[in-house]
Amino acid sequence: MAATAAFRETRDEAADPAAFPPPPLGARPVDRAAWISAFRHVRDETERRAAPLSPEDQQVQSMADASPTKWHRAHTTWFFEQFLLREHLPGYAIYDERLHYLFNSYYVAAGPRQPRIMRGLITRPTADEVAGYRAHVDRAVEALLSQASASALEAILPVLEIGLYHEQQHQELLITDILHAFAQNPLGPTYDADWRFPRSQDATGRVDLARGITQIGHAGEGFSFDNESPRHDVLIQGGTIDRALVTNADWLAFIADGGYTRPELWLSDGWIAAQAEGWDAPGYWRRAGEGWASMTLAGIQAVDPALPVTHISYYEADAYARWAGRDLPTEFEWEVAAREDRLADAFGLVWQWTRSAYTAYPGYRPVDGALGEYNGKFMSNQFVLRGSSVATPQGHARVGYRNFFYPHQRWQFTGLRLSDAR
Amino acid sequence: MAATAAFRETRDEAADPAAFPPPPLGARPVDRAAWISAFRHVRDETERRAAPLSPEDQQVQSMADASPTKWHRAHTTWFFEQFLLREHLPGYAIYDERLHYLFNSYYVAAGPRQPRIMRGLITRPTADEVAGYRAHVDRAVEALLSQASASALEAILPVLEIGLYHEQQHQELLITDILHAFAQNPLGPTYDADWRFPRSQDATGRVDLARGITQIGHAGEGFSFDNESPRHDVLIQGGTIDRALVTNADWLAFIADGGYTRPELWLSDGWIAAQAEGWDAPGYWRRAGEGWASMTLAGIQAVDPALPVTHISYYEADAYARWAGRDLPTEFEWEVAAREDRLADAFGLVWQWTRSAYTAYPGYRPVDGALGEYNGKFMSNQFVLRGSSVATPQGHARVGYRNFFYPHQRWQFTGLRLSDAR
Amino acid sequence: MAATAAFRETRDEAADPAAFPPPPLGARPVDRAAWISAFRHVRDETERRAAPLSPEDQQVQSMADASPTKWHRAHTTWFFEQFLLREHLPGYAIYDERLHYLFNSYYVAAGPRQPRIMRGLITRPTADEVAGYRAHVDRAVEALLSQASASALEAILPVLEIGLYHEQQHQELLITDILHAFAQNPLGPTYDADWRFPRSQDATGRVDLARGITQIGHAGEGFSFDNESPRHDVLIQGGTIDRALVTNADWLAFIADGGYTRPELWLSDGWIAAQAEGWDAPGYWRRAGEGWASMTLAGIQAVDPALPVTHISYYEADAYARWAGRDLPTEFEWEVAAREDRLADAFGLVWQWTRSAYTAYPGYRPVDGALGEYNGKFMSNQFVLRGSSVATPQGHARVGYRNFFYPHQRWQFTGLRLSDAR
Amino acid sequence: MAATAAFRETRDEAADPAAFPPPPLGARPVDRAAWISAFRHVRDETERRAAPLSPEDQQVQSMADASPTKWHRAHTTWFFEQFLLREHLPGYAIYDERLHYLFNSYYVAAGPRQPRIMRGLITRPTADEVAGYRAHVDRAVEALLSQASASALEAILPVLEIGLYHEQQHQELLITDILHAFAQNPLGPTYDADWRFPRSQDATGRVDLARGITQIGHAGEGFSFDNESPRHDVLIQGGTIDRALVTNADWLAFIADGGYTRPELWLSDGWIAAQAEGWDAPGYWRRAGEGWASMTLAGIQAVDPALPVTHISYYEADAYARWAGRDLPTEFEWEVAAREDRLADAFGLVWQWTRSAYTAYPGYRPVDGALGEYNGKFMSNQFVLRGSSVATPQGHARVGYRNFFYPHQRWQFTGLRLSDAR
Repeated sequence: MAATAAFRETRDEAADPAAFPPPPLGARPVDRAAWISAFRHVRDETERRAAPLSPEDQQVQSMADASPTKWHRAHTTWFFEQFLLREHLPGYAIYDERLHYLFNSYYVAAGPRQPRIMRGLITRPTADEVAGYRAHVDRAVEALLSQASASALEAILPVLEIGLYHEQQHQELLITDILHAFAQNPLGPTYDADWRFPRSQDATGRVDLARGITQIGHAGEGFSFDNESPRHDVLIQGGTIDRALVTNADWLAFIADGGYTRPELWLSDGWIAAQAEGWDAPGYWRRAGEGWASMTLAGIQAVDPALPVTHISYYEADAYARWAGRDLPTEFEWEVAAREDRLADAFGLVWQWTRSAYTAYPGYRPVDGALGEYNGKFMSNQFVLRGSSVATPQGHARVGYRNFFYPHQRWQFTGLRLSDAR
Repeated sequence: MAATAAFRETRDEAADPAAFPPPPLGARPVDRAAWISAFRHVRDETERRAAPLSPEDQQVQSMADASPTKWHRAHTTWFFEQFLLREHLPGYAIYDERLHYLFNSYYVAAGPRQPRIMRGLITRPTADEVAGYRAHVDRAVEALLSQASASALEAILPVLEIGLYHEQQHQELLITDILHAFAQNPLGPTYDADWRFPRSQDATGRVDLARGITQIGHAGEGFSFDNESPRHDVLIQGGTIDRALVTNADWLAFIADGGYTRPELWLSDGWIAAQAEGWDAPGYWRRAGEGWASMTLAGIQAVDPALPVTHISYYEADAYARWAGRDLPTEFEWEVAAREDRLADAFGLVWQWTRSAYTAYPGYRPVDGALGEYNGKFMSNQFVLRGSSVATPQGHARVGYRNFFYPHQRWQFTGLRLSDAR
Repeated sequence: MAATAAFRETRDEAADPAAFPPPPLGARPVDRAAWISAFRHVRDETERRAAPLSPEDQQVQSMADASPTKWHRAHTTWFFEQFLLREHLPGYAIYDERLHYLFNSYYVAAGPRQPRIMRGLITRPTADEVAGYRAHVDRAVEALLSQASASALEAILPVLEIGLYHEQQHQELLITDILHAFAQNPLGPTYDADWRFPRSQDATGRVDLARGITQIGHAGEGFSFDNESPRHDVLIQGGTIDRALVTNADWLAFIADGGYTRPELWLSDGWIAAQAEGWDAPGYWRRAGEGWASMTLAGIQAVDPALPVTHISYYEADAYARWAGRDLPTEFEWEVAAREDRLADAFGLVWQWTRSAYTAYPGYRPVDGALGEYNGKFMSNQFVLRGSSVATPQGHARVGYRNFFYPHQRWQFTGLRLSDAR
Repeated sequence: MAATAAFRETRDEAADPAAFPPPPLGARPVDRAAWISAFRHVRDETERRAAPLSPEDQQVQSMADASPTKWHRAHTTWFFEQFLLREHLPGYAIYDERLHYLFNSYYVAAGPRQPRIMRGLITRPTADEVAGYRAHVDRAVEALLSQASASALEAILPVLEIGLYHEQQHQELLITDILHAFAQNPLGPTYDADWRFPRSQDATGRVDLARGITQIGHAGEGFSFDNESPRHDVLIQGGTIDRALVTNADWLAFIADGGYTRPELWLSDGWIAAQAEGWDAPGYWRRAGEGWASMTLAGIQAVDPALPVTHISYYEADAYARWAGRDLPTEFEWEVAAREDRLADAFGLVWQWTRSAYTAYPGYRPVDGALGEYNGKFMSNQFVLRGSSVATPQGHARVGYRNFFYPHQRWQFTGLRLSDAR
């Protein structure tokens, strides 16, 4: 069954699933039409995700970590204008230089920018005007792809490619950010009343992790982010990893056993966060009569015990594992099991916290220039999540993908699976 | 000359200036048509002021002290529904009970409410849906006014009347709040590109304040807020008060003489605020080449030396007076001079800080119930301002009117005139 | 019974009560011996108050509003060195210039200073070394007083006099600050185990306040602070004022009637403070079995219903008056009744909140120079208290004295008496 | 040459260096005298380190991360009373139960405790009274060690042993905390005027790290903390590591090349911290004429280029490595090189930041009960440091020791050595 109706079924009807991912960078001759198709596919998906949202919805920034829908739409456009058109399209006239201050995110090398916390205060350009900005840049990029010389394409396609994956990341954030915004509204607005969280696969038991040295990191010719390299050897210690995700039913047992009231189960920083924030259940849960309901993309819904638990922080995942007398897997244990396809629901439901701090692979160096700020500068204080979620765009995930968030954050679709270290 | 084009000229064309204020409460027989006309006049003015604003503009809350345009439109509607229709219209069906949580401001007795700081997060209802709420309540109020028995009107009209003046207060806030929001946008959006601050009257010199006992506070049959009563005797010490307001030219001299860098000119709390906020000029001023520009309702404009200075805090007003070797008047000195019509620009340009702390007149008691929360509970830590401003609706101001703000606030159209205490 | 044993009985034995106040400034010939005696009297009293305190006790700063005992001892010494010796004693060698940074309080004109919040971090000089600083300055001041020419004394005595009253103010703070510090210690240390709060006078009923114009402010030849001038006419509206202070018994009735849980009784800012701080009783009260105990200078003691309530904020005083259907007096009403000696316990138990905001008397101007920072720069956001407290040094209080604190503060010995406005 | 004169040379004279460490836990027969000697040695060292400090010095807590000297002296005593005497000495009478609230640090299972931020407010017990507490507990522990049955010793010695290493950790903190406190005092007090930072060994060049699997973690019979286990295989990738520490001369080059002003060199969280704190040099550095001085245990001293840089945060270490085009080593790379004794100054000068996040070794489980809170609950958001510092007590360090701090902290003696990842 198709999940996430609003941004998945609609797309399935409207879009060509073959359009993404684009061809490998090294493929020759360059298939310009395929690249243009991939570009249109990604750009359209952003607009499809924004379509159910009113101008008011698109305006709001509900916390410092989130951004307005309108900002996501404009920022991803700025990315192409700044890094692709400004650099590579001779004679290109910037649509409006003033937008560059507004829609740069964190690229220090690309110039000053609106403080992150103030993104929600920019009422103009309006949502409609941002559509105009998008159309202008779309036309220019498509023209560039059609007309560039073969040698120019050598420089263009790597930037285009990262721009596409970058926009897909913002597509996921667009969904999680608007869910957070709606959750602040006591009316519990719906993004899509028909949306339902997809069901898990039937799966039980533990998978053995073979002890030994294995290669980790990106291989092959497809796209990957720089933080997935260099490919290198890792020693797997052995142990096991669960096939299934932890479910809401599991989590209710944790709550019932005092999971949120026993400090001995928690990391010190985690306990401080839990007390400060008043956590007594996953994010967006609220008591409903004898049970629990949760704010979802379809508004407030009863918690379904069969679904995987989501909107949990690393601190909660860690406390749960300690309560269960188990472990969280390392990112490498996860990757080994996932690439052998031995995990249920590795992708498409919830990002899965690992106990690996987000750090550089040995010998990692960011690329020069502003795009070097993409991943490397965040390599402290965060933990790696693996897999992908219900909000991840089609074609975006892969087995070596390293997502990362701070351990207190829980507005993403974040869950967990357990393991046992040897 | 007509000022504040967007919300004044338009109104002059569209509205009947005779419609407001309504008849005195005690007038008999009750002129239902005049009350309905006054109601429509006020309700329409709110919409006229909101008309230049996009749904995005209406959504934003740029600081805790400000509220979204949409919220002002809905809250003033809630006020009539809560205090007038719910109480006085038998069989009235509340439009949507859920809106009462969203649009109650600070009336504890009227139930729980959305935290003030989170007003900007409510994207739904949309601006259009708020228009529907307004229309529904408008129809019900007009029906009530048409059909209520004479005895019922005795209870209805006092609530209606305060609701009208209440909505006018929000009309002023609507303008000052959106100016603050626009000032956060580096693009400097315009509320009305043709808007110009009205010019001052030609006036110089000082008016003598006669020493002696005088009556202060509300008299007569017109409307006043409870904080203007009881009328009581006050001893005027004598001294003088300036006919003219302090101008931008005056203020530039203060700046040039180190006004913002000499702590001996400032109250201790004021100096702390000035340092913390980095004040070096009035609110919304920014350096422009050799001179100064200011964010206005018409976008960023050069500072005109001839205009009265505005967007200054009490702390700045106090420091300016000390620098000038002068005083700020008490609210009573202002009132005495104003009611004899001896002040230029007493009304219509800028609210004028007085050195009177905002406290109760002797024997003041708030009314029972939620409407008792209107004024009395704010009687600490604020200072009285007298007069009215360019954003004050027609018919709202009067000589005994007591406005009040915290001494650090400066997003209102606040200015000053000097005096000399005897 | 003599109260505040540690700093009162001891003093009564050790000191000559006739030593303070010194002669009026204008008395001729100048009685040098009397001035030296007054100086020694005040300086000794500070040391007597510090005597029960260990070096550790004298080191601690328990909040930004409080200062360490050691700092009080050094700062009052600095005051004489900075404003008296440096200016008026030719050839005087500053004891240690580095101490001036440490022990200046808020005199901007006297140079930079240690941030207030960091006073408790200065472990050196030690308490003993501060004693050496005090002795050095004492010797120099006494020498100056003995040897100065008659004409030099004209300039010296006004500074000496303000220095004495200044040091007395710090004597009161020394007591209230150490009580606050001890209250943070769960062991409930005692300043003086034998200390007892003095009993109230027997008094009931209300005193009529005659309507009419009266003179307010300092008159005569004795000392007063600048904020008590200019003397000026004030119109008393009439009404009554209670002879007695509000007691703990009264306050227990307020608590029992929901005084701390009914927002309609409170100023808006007061309710916010009460919620943020979790107030459910006066400062230092804690539940003890069925009743209440309070942290005092003699450690934790049962609350005595007969004593005047103390350690209450203005917000609480205001809420109490509203609950009682009464008023707080203005500072002028209090002064009129007190100077006619019609109030019980006007002095010596608790400072009494008035509903007068702390502002300048008409025509007030601070003196030039650093000493002009003494009072005037605090004239915003505070309320006037009248009378004096159990911690006020002998000879310090007078009927026109204007004390002032922020409305949320309650670490002083602050109480109230009620009135009825006409 | 003996370093850290105040707490090292003194000790060398006074103490028997053979007294510590005590015999391995498993040694039979148990050498009671050796354990008593080790206990006395550690207890005495704490007092030796506190000896130069006045009661005032011992009282102060200069930030939330630091604790008063007096608190360290009392807390380490509480540790023995709570975990050793209360559990294992039949009939032992607790010295004062009220001290347990005051001097428990973070052991939730051991009961409630004084909030960390308020440790500096406890003026009583005094420093002298804490000495009494220490003496009482010392006598009881020595009696217990003399008299306990052989079987009782089985349970006693592991607790005693961890208590000794625990107290040594506080000995290091005592020094770093008082240095931080003194650094807040503009007078720049000295802990020991003769103290000098020890010189580095002469060392240059890089050590090759052999690629391959190696065992990491605690082995053998000596003491280790639980976070050093389980011993497990780790794959070393190869690469090199510097023999020498980074020096002040190196760091001056980093500063001169804009190290503190180029965001591209910094982690995102690090840049935010650097801007917020205004970092432009290592902790305690201040400009002195054309050069730099630094606050040290001997007061303010010129920065010596030949010394290892210290008081740097992880963020600074990371930025420096990026600037140098090098890496920080992993904790495993460091351990491999150190156990082969190939590093200069591995111990005794500065703790060395590694790029390893502080996480559990595979299969790690904390012990049950309050002592299980010792290390495990801090395994998030911190980085591992290896080696030891000038403030580390003799006998405390070992090659597998894992120290950990937050990446923004720099009041410890923290430095770095560089490496090159393969």
